[in-house]
Amino acid sequence: MAYRALSEQEAVQYVKQLPDLFAPEAELTSREIGDGNLNLVFHIREEATGKSVVVKQALPYARVVGESWPLTLDRARIESEALRIQHKYVPDLVPKVYHYDEELALTVMEDVSDHVIMRKGLIEGNRYPLFAKQIGRFLAHTLFYTSDLGAHPYDKKALVGRFINPELCKITEDLVFTDPYEDAPTNNFNPLIKREVEAIWNNKQLKLEIAQLKYDFLTRAEALIHGDLHTGSIFVSPTSVKVIDPEFAYYGPIGFDIGAVIANLLLNYAGQHGLQPDAGKREDYREYLLATVEDVWNEFVSQFVQLWHKQAKERSAHTEGFWQGYVQRLIRDAAGFAGCKILRRVIGLAGVADLNSIADDQTRAEAERLALAIGQALILERNKVEVSTDITDIVRTVTARYYQEAVV
Amino acid sequence: MAYRALSEQEAVQYVKQLPDLFAPEAELTSREIGDGNLNLVFHIREEATGKSVVVKQALPYARVVGESWPLTLDRARIESEALRIQHKYVPDLVPKVYHYDEELALTVMEDVSDHVIMRKGLIEGNRYPLFAKQIGRFLAHTLFYTSDLGAHPYDKKALVGRFINPELCKITEDLVFTDPYEDAPTNNFNPLIKREVEAIWNNKQLKLEIAQLKYDFLTRAEALIHGDLHTGSIFVSPTSVKVIDPEFAYYGPIGFDIGAVIANLLLNYAGQHGLQPDAGKREDYREYLLATVEDVWNEFVSQFVQLWHKQAKERSAHTEGFWQGYVQRLIRDAAGFAGCKILRRVIGLAGVADLNSIADDQTRAEAERLALAIGQALILERNKVEVSTDITDIVRTVTARYYQEAVV
Repeated sequence: MAYRALSEQEAVQYVKQLPDLFAPEAELTSREIGDGNLNLVFHIREEATGKSVVVKQALPYARVVGESWPLTLDRARIESEALRIQHKYVPDLVPKVYHYDEELALTVMEDVSDHVIMRKGLIEGNRYPLFAKQIGRFLAHTLFYTSDLGAHPYDKKALVGRFINPELCKITEDLVFTDPYEDAPTNNFNPLIKREVEAIWNNKQLKLEIAQLKYDFLTRAEALIHGDLHTGSIFVSPTSVKVIDPEFAYYGPIGFDIGAVIANLLLNYAGQHGLQPDAGKREDYREYLLATVEDVWNEFVSQFVQLWHKQAKERSAHTEGFWQGYVQRLIRDAAGFAGCKILRRVIGLAGVADLNSIADDQTRAEAERLALAIGQALILERNKVEVSTDITDIVRTVTARYYQEAVV
Repeated sequence: MAYRALSEQEAVQYVKQLPDLFAPEAELTSREIGDGNLNLVFHIREEATGKSVVVKQALPYARVVGESWPLTLDRARIESEALRIQHKYVPDLVPKVYHYDEELALTVMEDVSDHVIMRKGLIEGNRYPLFAKQIGRFLAHTLFYTSDLGAHPYDKKALVGRFINPELCKITEDLVFTDPYEDAPTNNFNPLIKREVEAIWNNKQLKLEIAQLKYDFLTRAEALIHGDLHTGSIFVSPTSVKVIDPEFAYYGPIGFDIGAVIANLLLNYAGQHGLQPDAGKREDYREYLLATVEDVWNEFVSQFVQLWHKQAKERSAHTEGFWQGYVQRLIRDAAGFAGCKILRRVIGLAGVADLNSIADDQTRAEAERLALAIGQALILERNKVEVSTDITDIVRTVTARYYQEAVV
């Protein structure tokens, strides 16, 4: 049928006619739980059995900057295909896709709503001791097996073609790599940090590094990356992690996904300035966040290198010394991309609740200044990074200097 | 009509039914002038008017290593589309495509057979004073306008998709970047240089650099590159240059095309050892070749940077300091790729007449050893290269050392 946005009841009718999901006589409830800006998300449940699925339908626009912004429905195809590929490599970490409908730009998938959005969990001060191990595995497996290291050359190139994603890449190109670093109309920052933002706009060395990172984003077709791996795309429970929403997926630099996870842990770290009034508890939680940053990289790299040694099909991958240089470049890429992702969340169009939920403008500005200082340091000092503690050392040093100078 | 290889007479019938080429009553002669291994090439001419066209038809196999090797007919589409795009940017340097037939894997194009193959011209000791300026323009314009610098982001990504070229890329991946550096069955070298070849197989630093260059070839989608820009793909006349045969075109590293031109000039340079018995004339011609290497880079970079300043649509391209670092990386890439292309022509499956036409095995081995020494030095010393004379200095130093040690 031709595209139209479904109602809650139409979503029920839709899933009922699919084979193998519900019995024809099943009584189903339907609830739209999306934010309605980009997609409709229906939670459909059979009360009698407790069985449930999620129906996600793309809308042909994104409502941002107060106006309607047309956005390709092809992103639903990208998302469903990316979910299927990721599910193949890490089935426990990605919702299973039951059905994809191209006409309706709609995916029926496993319901993971027994998890919470990680960003929300972090804002509440919860800890997820299994998170680093699981996200490290997600990163290592999805990135290795879709890269030239782990995929057949023909398969990799076919995937590059299937994941050409110009419209969503353009959003990242503009909002992560361009607009925040000049006085662009899309920017949206706290007026109290204007001085710090202007210093960024005038920092030539910083802008040169960011231009190079953008060029890597534009040209380095290393692996099928998630493309938007912030803590709002990660669902967690005390024992489980689910990665969702890969509509930005395309062949890009591996470090971009790793950097996204690190950036969002560090945005929460900066936000703790306002989120947690008790200084002792704040320090304690920040230590947990920094340990998680280290663990995420360490888990990723240990599993990635293991896959490399055992599974790399690419003959040249086994050249002596190659993986060491490769991994060193990855952590530097990750640090640089993390920096851009931190800066853009403070200066650019789309903020994060870790900072925005700090009600007091002055306190929020203090947290945002810390985030800006961390983001810049990660970008400018990334070429000195070799191991994960080099990243957290940068954060610690910047933080210490910040509290010293600001006397907050 | 379904695919079948055309005869000379069928090729005439084919072009006669096309509009705008020949009158229905025209009397045409047809001559198959291809080498018949990969493609049929018909030269079709109307004697009465002197008007002529070339019909190039892909064969569904490549006859190499003594056996039939199936090869996608899609390469005819790639070639015709690449010719059209290149022609758009440098119309005087690329044959015009009159017609493409997908079913028959056939392209009807401008006849440039009044030119000679440059490799042949160089072997005969001819000079082409306009070559560097024209190939520099070909490189600068075709690479700039298809890159993220000069193309709209959506157009670039659409082109990446159209030029996914797995089978022909795999040939390069194997024959340029892998097989020559290990004892592979495809290799085909002069038994007299076995010691030097084995030293390459055991040179860990060299193999690490080559693995990194291969990885760049696999992942760096910088521009629509020709992909096989050796002197057999370049037609020259005293006043004109025509670049043909872009069937290896795909989105790859810009330095690969530049490196191909440099490599083939230097293969001829090495070949002069046997091609030109008169030491004075040999030195003189070698100086011409080195000057041409410098001019090719200098012309490319001056035109590329001019386009960058005047035409770059990508906002971040205008970041202070960005183009300088970019161009420095390009010349290093070019030096490294040139090195690989030299080594593979000596060790690997497909040799070049600049060396192979030296009849005496011993003399040819001497020229080949010089080529191997130059290729290795370009790869190992590429990170010191900043300007074009750094490349030619490497060649001069290697040559001087070679003649000193060999006492040839």
